[in-house]
Amino acid sequence: MRHRKIFLFSIAIFLLFGFEAQSQEKEKNKYYPYWHQKETHFRSLPNEANEIIFLGDSITDGCNWSEMFHDLRIKNRGISADITDGVLDRLDEVVESKPLKIFLMIGVNDLARGKAVDYIVRNIERILDSIQKETPQTEIYVQSLLPVNSVYGLAKNHTNKTAEIIAINAALKKMAKDRKLTFVDLHSFLKTESNLLDPEYTNDGLHLTGKGYLVWKSAIEKYLR
Amino acid sequence: MRHRKIFLFSIAIFLLFGFEAQSQEKEKNKYYPYWHQKETHFRSLPNEANEIIFLGDSITDGCNWSEMFHDLRIKNRGISADITDGVLDRLDEVVESKPLKIFLMIGVNDLARGKAVDYIVRNIERILDSIQKETPQTEIYVQSLLPVNSVYGLAKNHTNKTAEIIAINAALKKMAKDRKLTFVDLHSFLKTESNLLDPEYTNDGLHLTGKGYLVWKSAIEKYLR
Repeated sequence: MRHRKIFLFSIAIFLLFGFEAQSQEKEKNKYYPYWHQKETHFRSLPNEANEIIFLGDSITDGCNWSEMFHDLRIKNRGISADITDGVLDRLDEVVESKPLKIFLMIGVNDLARGKAVDYIVRNIERILDSIQKETPQTEIYVQSLLPVNSVYGLAKNHTNKTAEIIAINAALKKMAKDRKLTFVDLHSFLKTESNLLDPEYTNDGLHLTGKGYLVWKSAIEKYLR
Repeated sequence: MRHRKIFLFSIAIFLLFGFEAQSQEKEKNKYYPYWHQKETHFRSLPNEANEIIFLGDSITDGCNWSEMFHDLRIKNRGISADITDGVLDRLDEVVESKPLKIFLMIGVNDLARGKAVDYIVRNIERILDSIQKETPQTEIYVQSLLPVNSVYGLAKNHTNKTAEIIAINAALKKMAKDRKLTFVDLHSFLKTESNLLDPEYTNDGLHLTGKGYLVWKSAIEKYLR
């Protein structure tokens, strides 16, 4: 009888650890390899006082922010191809240091994956809720999504989302106002008259060339002085 | 007669500008969009005194070097998917500031594209020739290629090149010695007993996770003090 109890107890413990290990394994492979490479890299770097975080996807990832502003407090927390759920899943690493400022831009990859405007806006609300709860002193800059341009025939699921991007940006502008946060309308600085990403600043209709990042720089440098 | 001369002269000028424009257009699209996004971004950033350049492909691109070493002199000049010819084509931007140090790692994407070991070694010779000619005071660190591991079934054209990587590294070690440069044997720090990239440091057999970059850090920090 006693042996049977010990046996059953052992089985239960074994299963428990098995499920735990399985769920950890699942967590480790929830996204694509690059996401986990960057996420573990970010977690391996020490927190500092007065961090200025650029949080987002490939458009954020692609810029050497600390070099461009010559400021070592600036940390690149962009991950190419990231989505709003991905940002939520790694937000604890971002807020842990109680950063001075966060510049957020996320959502265009959600659109490319077929997510609805409402879903994306709600997720960005959740990101802001979480930041404001965990680190209420942090200044949050809600950046608009950038315009896109399908003329290059590249990133086709992204670059056909002009109307959705405009809708998200309108929601973000309101959201920022309601929360008394700064909305940064990068869209206006980078678009043509027909609301497309100006070919002056891109070579694929989605990402920025050097000149595009200089426009972004000039739009936000007043917030970094 | 005189009109005919002017006419022919105009045609010649027109053709000349046409070819020039065409060749410029070709230069602008020589590589993939991301290469040109990064290259124009790098050119848009000002030169500084005492730059420390990390030059390479995605494995260099993926690390927040200046943050990891807490040193604003450090500049990331990695471009995901870059090859030795790509580095040669943008080397003028790197040497222009006469950097204090350059940490070079390039070649694994050449292997994935089917380039021979000899071709790659010759191209790295050309990169070193060019750096040493343009900025003889710069300290050059010739970093080994990293080991790879095909166990993940990812990046298959890269991760089946263990023998070629070992051959290139032997050539780089000799090359560094002949030129009295520092060879950094990262391969030894990151490999298993069977010369594969240790799963402790990767999640795709080609790129590094956070823990992998910490090994790289500890291997080179003595050169950055």
